[in-house]
Amino acid sequence: MAKTGKEAEMRRWLTALALAVGAGVAATAFAADSGTVPFPTGYRSWFVDHSTVMLPGHTPEREVGIAQVYANAKALKGLKTGKYADGAVFVIDPFQIVEGDNKVLSQGERKALVVMLRDHKRKDTGGWGFEAFVGGDPKQRVVSDGGKACFTCHAPLASNNFLFTHYHP
Amino acid sequence: MAKTGKEAEMRRWLTALALAVGAGVAATAFAADSGTVPFPTGYRSWFVDHSTVMLPGHTPEREVGIAQVYANAKALKGLKTGKYADGAVFVIDPFQIVEGDNKVLSQGERKALVVMLRDHKRKDTGGWGFEAFVGGDPKQRVVSDGGKACFTCHAPLASNNFLFTHYHP
Repeated sequence: MAKTGKEAEMRRWLTALALAVGAGVAATAFAADSGTVPFPTGYRSWFVDHSTVMLPGHTPEREVGIAQVYANAKALKGLKTGKYADGAVFVIDPFQIVEGDNKVLSQGERKALVVMLRDHKRKDTGGWGFEAFVGGDPKQRVVSDGGKACFTCHAPLASNNFLFTHYHP
Repeated sequence: MAKTGKEAEMRRWLTALALAVGAGVAATAFAADSGTVPFPTGYRSWFVDHSTVMLPGHTPEREVGIAQVYANAKALKGLKTGKYADGAVFVIDPFQIVEGDNKVLSQGERKALVVMLRDHKRKDTGGWGFEAFVGGDPKQRVVSDGGKACFTCHAPLASNNFLFTHYHP
């Protein structure tokens, strides 16, 4: 394996996932100036930009997993053009790691769905809404601060539309 | 990580990939009773069933990578019903592993595209055609025996339509 210092780029779903898994229970209320971020129904038919892996030994431990990064049609257009229309959605779909023989890793249980929704009205969070759903359950929302905690780590990424993700052709 | 003995299931793309990478060069000719397996144009917009990882230390070393497993519409229907219509296609898309700090792995260069095409006429290979494209290059085909070598490892899997892959909802 090659080594790279681009950990920041690879940590694209860590913060949101940390919120999702760290919370551990569904939020019973949420503050959202522009309404809630919808559950990403049908995301499994969207474009998968890439996968990423956090191995055991990664800290914090709750982020360990194998994840796919999905983009809906507007988000895919954004990846290609650098411009995101309202309604663009990214979904991170992380799974527990199941370790087989001979250094083979496969997917176990779904940990969470982590969602970013482009909405220019959400000015406090870079024009993105943030949400996570524990175990992929539409009823178990995590974000309760309008996404401000999520945005803390995205804020430095203004030059990439506040995204960690880059297009993988 | 949990341990499992189901390595066979997780080795779904190993044999074909071994052929692809091990061959190292494009085949200049191919024997195919039912014609060649087409390059899977547009597969990036297909359903991703799951991802799998072969870590460094896995043998043979050439199989080390992170891969997505794609299914076209007919293959997705087959995953759900257990019955595969002609034209169903699976694509395995393995990448080099790039190791970051803090036990984070991300995708590097594309290693190959590994393809299975449902075609009931290909009776010698379980009703499937096999092909691989080095580096994802449509011009660099690998399979030169009509898929017979590939099928060697799939032959025991008659109860699952000769597939290693199972549906991941």
